[in-house]
Amino acid sequence: MPVEKGALASRSQRLLDLKPAPHFEAFMKGYMDQWSQDNPEGYVLIAVAENKLHSDAFAHRMQEALARPLPDWVMNYTMMTGDPRLQEVLAALLRHTFLKGFEVRAGDLVISNGVTPLLDHLFFTLADAGEGVLIPAPYYPSFDMDLMAKDDVVPVPFYLVEDGDVTAQLAQAAAAAAEAGSPIRALLITNPNNPLGIVYSTATLKSMLEWSVKNGVHLVSDEIYALSVHGEATFVSMQRVAQGLVEEGALTQEGVDTHLHLLWGMSKDFGGSGLRLGVLHTRSASLKKVFGSISPFSQASNLVQYALTVVLSDLDWVDAWVAENQRQLALSYSAFSAALTEAGIPFTPATSAMFVWLDLRKWLPKQGWEGEAALWQRICDEARVVVTTGHSCHAAEPGYFRVCFAWVPAEALVVAATRLSAVLDGAADT
Amino acid sequence: MPVEKGALASRSQRLLDLKPAPHFEAFMKGYMDQWSQDNPEGYVLIAVAENKLHSDAFAHRMQEALARPLPDWVMNYTMMTGDPRLQEVLAALLRHTFLKGFEVRAGDLVISNGVTPLLDHLFFTLADAGEGVLIPAPYYPSFDMDLMAKDDVVPVPFYLVEDGDVTAQLAQAAAAAAEAGSPIRALLITNPNNPLGIVYSTATLKSMLEWSVKNGVHLVSDEIYALSVHGEATFVSMQRVAQGLVEEGALTQEGVDTHLHLLWGMSKDFGGSGLRLGVLHTRSASLKKVFGSISPFSQASNLVQYALTVVLSDLDWVDAWVAENQRQLALSYSAFSAALTEAGIPFTPATSAMFVWLDLRKWLPKQGWEGEAALWQRICDEARVVVTTGHSCHAAEPGYFRVCFAWVPAEALVVAATRLSAVLDGAADT
Repeated sequence: MPVEKGALASRSQRLLDLKPAPHFEAFMKGYMDQWSQDNPEGYVLIAVAENKLHSDAFAHRMQEALARPLPDWVMNYTMMTGDPRLQEVLAALLRHTFLKGFEVRAGDLVISNGVTPLLDHLFFTLADAGEGVLIPAPYYPSFDMDLMAKDDVVPVPFYLVEDGDVTAQLAQAAAAAAEAGSPIRALLITNPNNPLGIVYSTATLKSMLEWSVKNGVHLVSDEIYALSVHGEATFVSMQRVAQGLVEEGALTQEGVDTHLHLLWGMSKDFGGSGLRLGVLHTRSASLKKVFGSISPFSQASNLVQYALTVVLSDLDWVDAWVAENQRQLALSYSAFSAALTEAGIPFTPATSAMFVWLDLRKWLPKQGWEGEAALWQRICDEARVVVTTGHSCHAAEPGYFRVCFAWVPAEALVVAATRLSAVLDGAADT
Repeated sequence: MPVEKGALASRSQRLLDLKPAPHFEAFMKGYMDQWSQDNPEGYVLIAVAENKLHSDAFAHRMQEALARPLPDWVMNYTMMTGDPRLQEVLAALLRHTFLKGFEVRAGDLVISNGVTPLLDHLFFTLADAGEGVLIPAPYYPSFDMDLMAKDDVVPVPFYLVEDGDVTAQLAQAAAAAAEAGSPIRALLITNPNNPLGIVYSTATLKSMLEWSVKNGVHLVSDEIYALSVHGEATFVSMQRVAQGLVEEGALTQEGVDTHLHLLWGMSKDFGGSGLRLGVLHTRSASLKKVFGSISPFSQASNLVQYALTVVLSDLDWVDAWVAENQRQLALSYSAFSAALTEAGIPFTPATSAMFVWLDLRKWLPKQGWEGEAALWQRICDEARVVVTTGHSCHAAEPGYFRVCFAWVPAEALVVAATRLSAVLDGAADT
């Protein structure tokens, strides 16, 4: 045999070399000792992008659906790319909500056990090993693993300035990546954005799509927070932007259909990351063909598919649930942002999703990423607050931190802001 | 850009070139027109490896579990490699059933959305692109796609003769594969076997494991039918065989722990392929580390994990369910085998799983795989019975067909045997 006994494949070596992110270890430690009214000294965990504010009502509704007699197909195989009944229900839901005005067809949806496996499949399909994917930074920390772990694709962060010439920025970033040996095959965006908590302007989205289609670059628009707008902002799906560009004659329908792929799911907008259900919308015939072959690896549970078929087909109920969820997001954001302002802690005003992007640059104990790591550790140890570092989000410079504000009740957010303030006051003295 | 506009990655080309298996198309056609008492001319579909005989009782039990108040974690993330509570319950179940006498540890189990994604992950991890995996033939048709689709690993069928020198056969097959450019990194077996419906002898299993460990080859033992023995046979898990070899001093514990990996799940033994829940048992620390990183792509739904935690923790109930399931498998097998014998159709006597391996060689209308395809088509069109070809199972020679007998009620099996007989009588005349 050509290799050491019992050795793993050389391609899995990069996974063996990984170290867990520090916030993961801190999270696990804090998980056993969380803040509550009864444990006022406990950790406030605001590093996980989950929305727990209204998910109990969703769980209860699923439970009601599952109390009726279950159809046979719950225990058996259905179509690998998703049950056709759920595809229809999801198509109707999307037409009714953030894709209103766009003809969502059930057959253009691929259902899977979450968006994470869809990302793995997508970048296996769209790019070869060593090729690049442009991602406006700061971005969702796990994109790196999602693209690199198995696909061996190179995430290429670029620091988007929306006020500037977006097309020029894209072209420059792509040229630099190609020069560095990673030609760009796709642009991956998250809109509404994680970690910024904002939506992109329509002008920015137009520039992104035009540049992508004209350069033969796939555009993957992760719109997993589409229904989680809680402030004064209007989210516009890239698919709606595409329609506009086709109507204007700036792009052809075929160009859009070949290059634009949307992602969405239950994890964020319905607080159901544990359900494991994600959706890809694509009109690319070849992409759909590939997914027909690789979807056996990423089937959602039929128990979940069935329950969602029942729950999500009641669009009045969905509307009411989404409105209440947004109201609760707004309440939490309002409480937290007020407490931050009161404490003099700067942050990017957010309108969407479940994030607040803190700017703690002036409190860094020393320059550089080391200074950020030191401040993060201090926040963790002294404030007993677990946040995500800007470094793991590919922030442009050290000193930013991401807060996921929907993982805890609003009272815990106020506690976190107060404790942060105390630690930062102390940090200024060192 | 270096490639055609909107082109997919070159590595997805092999997926674009695929054609669906003929039995899949026939299945889809027959699905809309299935045999029943009310549709006596309908198709008998016996090409899908699912057991529907007793799954309604399992579904009902899950439903009862889900009627109680759901814990919060159903909607949220749990550990990526599986919820620790379910890991404990599964470890206890395995210790109680086919791994009795072996110390199954919860931490050695990786839970996923089925065995199919585990296969994808495993062969990504154990072998590099172009390397080979030995598989005793005939074998489960989908192994080819599972190994090739994303992992680009080469399945190497070899025609195992259990009465012969198993070690010599393995060595010869591995040498031939290495010579052909695909050095063997793993041996993949299914025991009880799909499509033969038999269990391997302990002597065979010993030879396989000794050869594997001594040659630094990983052994993946797919034991997904472990609890579906319905006849006079004793299934012995490879893990129990390993214990024996370690006790004898033939292998070291470390050698076994590094090389042996077991697969199991809910799809077959509990008739729950739609639930999407598979389990890997491994004691390889490096393999577990890799799975820690790639399990986000293959998370099972927490709704299912929770329901199973409740249902499977009642081992008395599990025992009774398994016994009844085996009784129903035996009844169906008995009805079908009697009808086949009556009709003079030869087959491999089965003791396990849900398969009957028909030997229709003497009815081939012409020699070779073309003759098999022609007979399959005739069985499909004239008998209106959909089976799996031996060719897709890598049978050693043309003329064998796989029947999955647990997808339909026993009466349908008798209808199928009668219709088969009529078509074969006709075939003899041509």
